[in-house]
Amino acid sequence: MNWKSEILAAQHRISGYAQVTPVMTSKIPGYPIELKLEQMQHTGSFKARGAFNTLISSDVPEAGVVAASGGNHGAAAAYAAQALGYPAKIFVPELAGPSKIALIKQTGADLSVVSGEYANALTAAQAHEQATGAMQIHAYDAPATVAGQGTCFAEWDAQGLEADTVLVAVGGGGLIAGALAWFDGARKVVAVEPETSCALNAALKAGEPVDVSVSGIAANALGARRIGQICFDLAQGMSSVLVIDEAIAEAQQMLWKAHRILVEPAGAAALAALTSGAYQPEPGERVAVLICGGNIAPDPLAG
Amino acid sequence: MNWKSEILAAQHRISGYAQVTPVMTSKIPGYPIELKLEQMQHTGSFKARGAFNTLISSDVPEAGVVAASGGNHGAAAAYAAQALGYPAKIFVPELAGPSKIALIKQTGADLSVVSGEYANALTAAQAHEQATGAMQIHAYDAPATVAGQGTCFAEWDAQGLEADTVLVAVGGGGLIAGALAWFDGARKVVAVEPETSCALNAALKAGEPVDVSVSGIAANALGARRIGQICFDLAQGMSSVLVIDEAIAEAQQMLWKAHRILVEPAGAAALAALTSGAYQPEPGERVAVLICGGNIAPDPLAG
Repeated sequence: MNWKSEILAAQHRISGYAQVTPVMTSKIPGYPIELKLEQMQHTGSFKARGAFNTLISSDVPEAGVVAASGGNHGAAAAYAAQALGYPAKIFVPELAGPSKIALIKQTGADLSVVSGEYANALTAAQAHEQATGAMQIHAYDAPATVAGQGTCFAEWDAQGLEADTVLVAVGGGGLIAGALAWFDGARKVVAVEPETSCALNAALKAGEPVDVSVSGIAANALGARRIGQICFDLAQGMSSVLVIDEAIAEAQQMLWKAHRILVEPAGAAALAALTSGAYQPEPGERVAVLICGGNIAPDPLAG
Repeated sequence: MNWKSEILAAQHRISGYAQVTPVMTSKIPGYPIELKLEQMQHTGSFKARGAFNTLISSDVPEAGVVAASGGNHGAAAAYAAQALGYPAKIFVPELAGPSKIALIKQTGADLSVVSGEYANALTAAQAHEQATGAMQIHAYDAPATVAGQGTCFAEWDAQGLEADTVLVAVGGGGLIAGALAWFDGARKVVAVEPETSCALNAALKAGEPVDVSVSGIAANALGARRIGQICFDLAQGMSSVLVIDEAIAEAQQMLWKAHRILVEPAGAAALAALTSGAYQPEPGERVAVLICGGNIAPDPLAG
């Protein structure tokens, strides 16, 4: 696949639907880094990019669209479906939490909350697809999803990204696959996962995608049980680091205290690799961090 | 005063101390607008610009610096003093609230909480200045403060601001004086004040600065009892609109829902002029909104 041209086509396609998200510099780790504030994307995460790209590039059946999600992808799929006039059916696990569930409901999508973890929601979504003919929007392991997420990095390049190295949090691998596909070796990409939800790290060690158990404070966004095949193929030989929940929570606090950037734990995970020292840049290495999600629970303005 | 050169000098002076804050476009009012996210400035508001400019351009006495503040200016003065190695004494009124009081304490400043409103804190700060010889950093009505706040708009111009019209929330008038001084008629500046804290609007109607009563949800940031003279002199003939608290709260919700931008009420006041229709752009008029403060209470990550 010619990923660069797929991503550029996606960028053209979703222009006017996706939000161009701002970039800034920060000294949070004690040295200058670049940040891209992708949590400011519609529905609070990068997921809207892949959802719009998938829907605009597809013939959507009358039964509409279906998605399974830890919350962010479901909200994005529901938002994109609403914006484009399609019905949407979304399955989320209970651990999606009240903020994300409320967010999906606001789009007018038909929402089912499934007991257990993300994999159960995926099973239910696949059953719905079989039964109704609705189109599945995969959360991470589909070319249109990966190309859509890749637009985040194409956009960042156009905004003047200078870094040698870009840190990206990994759940199922759609976002980092987009980064690897876009940069194609021109910049180093570092995968950051919670120790307790590390499907990519485990796959790289095993030499193939393997099932992992998922838990921890970022599990409702990063808790994929198995890394996507597209990501795994692109990720060969890449740098992968793990962070503990305490480091994620600390980075989340730092973002708020330094810049009034309020993110969910997953949104702070990539930064946590720097602030905890899990990734230590070489002297002179310029580093950038993608802030990926802001759907914190509880809603800070509720009540 | 040659404000342009004062502001450019201030920009040079505070470079490396103040945060360059990001800009973005939004469709929150239903049409495209430009936003500058100045709540991401150090200590969560534009006030750090004026504080750094004042301290760097002054001979600070051994007694250090003193400031009176509804909270944001005090935090900025304390932060700048700490960064530059000066002792700081800060007076805030009770209504500054727990988030801002905690923020000031974190800088290591000597903090006194004064009963009543901002004016009482100013009186106490003036007494401290008399008694100790400490240098007063005025919150808004001093040339170095206004030139510092003006750097926000010089920076925005350099970031590619396109708008014909820039909406700015007004408390004591330091920020909007900076806008008027910098743009100098090249762009229209619109003053936005809460109906219940409208020192500039009242002054423009009376033909001179007059005392007003202050209350409402943005009072701890915008509740100056009397507009600054520098602002008043620059503001002659300008456009001034008022917004009600409900419109401010609604705009605050919209910023969070659309972009995961979490601000204090004052930070949403200028946007509220658009979302409430208090300011209605002419056909084709391109509008920008300065988001000025993010020190929401309670701290969304506390506990």
